[in-house]
Amino acid sequence: MKNFTVTIARGFGSGGRTIGKMLAKRLGIEWYDQDLIKLASEESGINIELFGKADEHKKATLFGKYDRNFGDKIIPPDSGEFTSDDNLFNYQAKVIKALHAKGSCVIVGRCADYVLREETNVLRVFIYASKERCVQTVADLYNLSPREAERQIERIDRARSTYYRYYTGQEWDNARNYDLCLNSEQLGFERCVDLIEHYLKVLYE
Amino acid sequence: MKNFTVTIARGFGSGGRTIGKMLAKRLGIEWYDQDLIKLASEESGINIELFGKADEHKKATLFGKYDRNFGDKIIPPDSGEFTSDDNLFNYQAKVIKALHAKGSCVIVGRCADYVLREETNVLRVFIYASKERCVQTVADLYNLSPREAERQIERIDRARSTYYRYYTGQEWDNARNYDLCLNSEQLGFERCVDLIEHYLKVLYE
Repeated sequence: MKNFTVTIARGFGSGGRTIGKMLAKRLGIEWYDQDLIKLASEESGINIELFGKADEHKKATLFGKYDRNFGDKIIPPDSGEFTSDDNLFNYQAKVIKALHAKGSCVIVGRCADYVLREETNVLRVFIYASKERCVQTVADLYNLSPREAERQIERIDRARSTYYRYYTGQEWDNARNYDLCLNSEQLGFERCVDLIEHYLKVLYE
Repeated sequence: MKNFTVTIARGFGSGGRTIGKMLAKRLGIEWYDQDLIKLASEESGINIELFGKADEHKKATLFGKYDRNFGDKIIPPDSGEFTSDDNLFNYQAKVIKALHAKGSCVIVGRCADYVLREETNVLRVFIYASKERCVQTVADLYNLSPREAERQIERIDRARSTYYRYYTGQEWDNARNYDLCLNSEQLGFERCVDLIEHYLKVLYE
């Protein structure tokens, strides 16, 4: 099989992250998620604390520290932090392109589908499930009440959607941004991995 | 394999209709598109001319007779026709449910994914491709200039999107309405059929 990159965008609670990890393991290729931050920092030579700060800010946004005040828009408190966030995105994009050039891998999140939109040998996947199923998964996983799980899902998906719109100008859950969109509810995680593997074989073998 | 229904929504020029027909042929099951109108008429007992009229109106809308005047909304010229359209949708929905209950089939368009949203053994598929690819396909197929093809695609996709939003309250190209969304550009028609067949085997065999 040729070198390829699978990018995975995913709704919170849909199992997309797990599916990405299972796929990478089965194919014996690299898998990237939060480690990307560290890699971005190492490659760029930028002070790791700056990245830490920008990432922390993004986390605060993800968990609603700012998004409740500013509706759907990510508005950093000051232009200094704004620059940090944008710099972080640009360095992550550089790292994502380098990882894609280096060998086969799975990259979860970080608008990797958009970053690699003009590259060849990229399979851009979006994983999602019904709200009911996601609530059940998140409530079980984090020991939350269904109501708490639902609020967490709404916050995180809204933040992901806002982040995606801010950096790509596109709607995060619009099918047209991806090559393959899969509802994990009907297939289950294992068979989602089967189907993505089948797609890769058909395309790259 | 159990009885199942595959619903296919598709962008104009993406080949979704062809893919649906190829899939049905390969699986040896029924395929429905425009014939549904006739079936709806026969089953309902409603005057075939009324259906003809409503369908004609919809066609006029699809090709821009009304949508240029009314932007994104389908606004029928008078409430009489409005009722015909809504009746037509309801009868089509009834027929779609009957077809699903009767045996395995492929149904293209007509919001069949939404109509069958609470039924089991339904695979809801959305097929699309980049605008560039659709323009090329439509220009070749209908012997149009690229500019004419692009305008035709924009009109028809806008009408489909409006129709879908009107009857379902959802966005037509949002991945979450479907179980499987496929970009036909990367795979080509034949391999899209392979992948849908693989999905059905995994799920229903």
